[in-house]
Amino acid sequence: MTERIYNFNPGPAALPLPVLEEIQADLLNFKNTGMSILEISHRSGAFEAVLNDAVARVKSLFGLPDSYHVVFLQGGASTQFFMAPMNLLKPGLSADYVNTGTWSTKAIKEARLLSQNIHVIASSEDRNFCYIPKNIQFTSGSVYAHLTSNNTIKGTQWAEFPDTDGIPLMADMSSDILCRPLDLSPFGLVYAGAQKNLGPAGVTLVIIRQDLLDRCRVDLPSMLSYQTHVSKNSLYNTPPVFGIYVIQLVLKWIEETIGGLEAMGRLNEQKAGLLYDFLDGEDFYQPTADRDSRSMMNVTFRLPTVDLENEFVAAAQKQEMGGLKGHRSVGGCRASIYNAVALEAVETLVSFMKEFVRTRG
Amino acid sequence: MTERIYNFNPGPAALPLPVLEEIQADLLNFKNTGMSILEISHRSGAFEAVLNDAVARVKSLFGLPDSYHVVFLQGGASTQFFMAPMNLLKPGLSADYVNTGTWSTKAIKEARLLSQNIHVIASSEDRNFCYIPKNIQFTSGSVYAHLTSNNTIKGTQWAEFPDTDGIPLMADMSSDILCRPLDLSPFGLVYAGAQKNLGPAGVTLVIIRQDLLDRCRVDLPSMLSYQTHVSKNSLYNTPPVFGIYVIQLVLKWIEETIGGLEAMGRLNEQKAGLLYDFLDGEDFYQPTADRDSRSMMNVTFRLPTVDLENEFVAAAQKQEMGGLKGHRSVGGCRASIYNAVALEAVETLVSFMKEFVRTRG
Repeated sequence: MTERIYNFNPGPAALPLPVLEEIQADLLNFKNTGMSILEISHRSGAFEAVLNDAVARVKSLFGLPDSYHVVFLQGGASTQFFMAPMNLLKPGLSADYVNTGTWSTKAIKEARLLSQNIHVIASSEDRNFCYIPKNIQFTSGSVYAHLTSNNTIKGTQWAEFPDTDGIPLMADMSSDILCRPLDLSPFGLVYAGAQKNLGPAGVTLVIIRQDLLDRCRVDLPSMLSYQTHVSKNSLYNTPPVFGIYVIQLVLKWIEETIGGLEAMGRLNEQKAGLLYDFLDGEDFYQPTADRDSRSMMNVTFRLPTVDLENEFVAAAQKQEMGGLKGHRSVGGCRASIYNAVALEAVETLVSFMKEFVRTRG
Repeated sequence: MTERIYNFNPGPAALPLPVLEEIQADLLNFKNTGMSILEISHRSGAFEAVLNDAVARVKSLFGLPDSYHVVFLQGGASTQFFMAPMNLLKPGLSADYVNTGTWSTKAIKEARLLSQNIHVIASSEDRNFCYIPKNIQFTSGSVYAHLTSNNTIKGTQWAEFPDTDGIPLMADMSSDILCRPLDLSPFGLVYAGAQKNLGPAGVTLVIIRQDLLDRCRVDLPSMLSYQTHVSKNSLYNTPPVFGIYVIQLVLKWIEETIGGLEAMGRLNEQKAGLLYDFLDGEDFYQPTADRDSRSMMNVTFRLPTVDLENEFVAAAQKQEMGGLKGHRSVGGCRASIYNAVALEAVETLVSFMKEFVRTRG
């Protein structure tokens, strides 16, 4: 029996144990090919089945019509920060951005390297990004409106998405993709680095709608063109085979073990509810996000002093709970409770927190 | 006991069995962290040790001085095709390219999307790229001279590199990196997709010398700037953690199990020699590359008819030898015998080929 800890890391993060066990069992001989998944050709039937199944499961989980394309790229969300405006913002065109934290800020910075027409139409910077802006006015004629659906560092999440009056939404969903049922029809482009809710670091899910794909520039380097990757079904060049394989197993786990996005959403609500209810009942712990903007994925909170926070993180680590330190840019504590973090892990954490406040509070 | 085949795939390709076994054994609990390597933070001490060891081993295997930087990026060689000229070819500057096959041709195409000053100074296209050009004249003032060190599809390899009269060489070494001892001092930039000689698909080794780094543009999107990745030691954003981990194990295997690049080179010469000597002794099999341009990594050959070639590949597959079909663009047969392909695999292949010619020749 392998000794594993409760993993509250913000990303790379916990993966479902049955997925890890299947990877381990099949590592030397994938599907009777006599080769490891790390050694098989990306143009083999065995891998194309994995890739196509992953694409089909993304479409089925989101209920996507044929107008949406699903590809697996490299370079993380950080690559999408420039690739999206590079493809879509031809000279003279403009885009709206909402700034809800560190990653939104980076997306805006990269877009501004490529276009002078980036409108930051709303921001929660005035209160250190502890809330999601409301009553946003979008700019007529913008090619897209970009937002970050969940803010890993600040612990906020869009509970629902704004009405853009027809402007396609574009979202960085790296830290909450597939955490709940979601109608993607207002979205023209969605991207997500895999390493939080989907799989290992090194692969990025991109979902793009046909009308945005049609507007993309065609004079870009091949690897930077969404049209390249869509037209080649993610096989223009050698894709990150292993990462796509793990994503396929995680998608299968969501669909077949958890029971789909409705069930996934209920479980995530239960986990987050347990933690927030406890935090709200104890003055010792102070949640940092406004109540209506709280993230189901990253629960951020402070203790009375930095010394107590350090002691808390160290004591938790001793009891086999890892990754509870807040991001270095904001301090405090953070429990990342992504899809693969089990209810039992959250229950164990709450018990520990009760005990900690009893002895230190 | 897992049943494994002899893997002659051109890439993704064979990995050393002891490396695969170590990955498998440690998959649920990496270095006593209580987490899988797929779940640990890229900013954890456990991963930084892996990354730094991989960098140190690349430097030590090549004997690189401090003026060389080693980073691990994403997007494969296909991303380097545009990233290198994007960083180095400021307006008015020019570069030389040698065209030795499919991948050189792609590198030239992508560079020409970004610069009008791409000089193709030599090519072996006149004879379907079956040789490496000689007596090349470089263009005075070029920022770099690009070549493909080994041509996976055409089965050719540079036995030695040309004297450029001081112009820094740039090489795509995806399919022969670390196959033999090599003095990198004439090279200003080397890149290699991992999936042939280094590790799994999804991670790219880039080695860049300080003088070229100093000449790079600084107004690029962060992820496209070599300076970003060098200054952050490959940790500007979440790197492909698992891929770097596998590379580190492969580098360790080359150094500690094989015994370094001298031993690796001798083994590869022995493997290739065995196969080419056999091919040269049988009229039934015709090697496609000129004798002085033959690749140690990809041995390409034809049989008398396409039907016999198909029969050959199918019969080999039945005897647990996979990946022997030539690239779809050229046909024929190809045995890719990268670092991780054991001498025993080549001996088994030669025995099979002897038997095949006896019954079909």
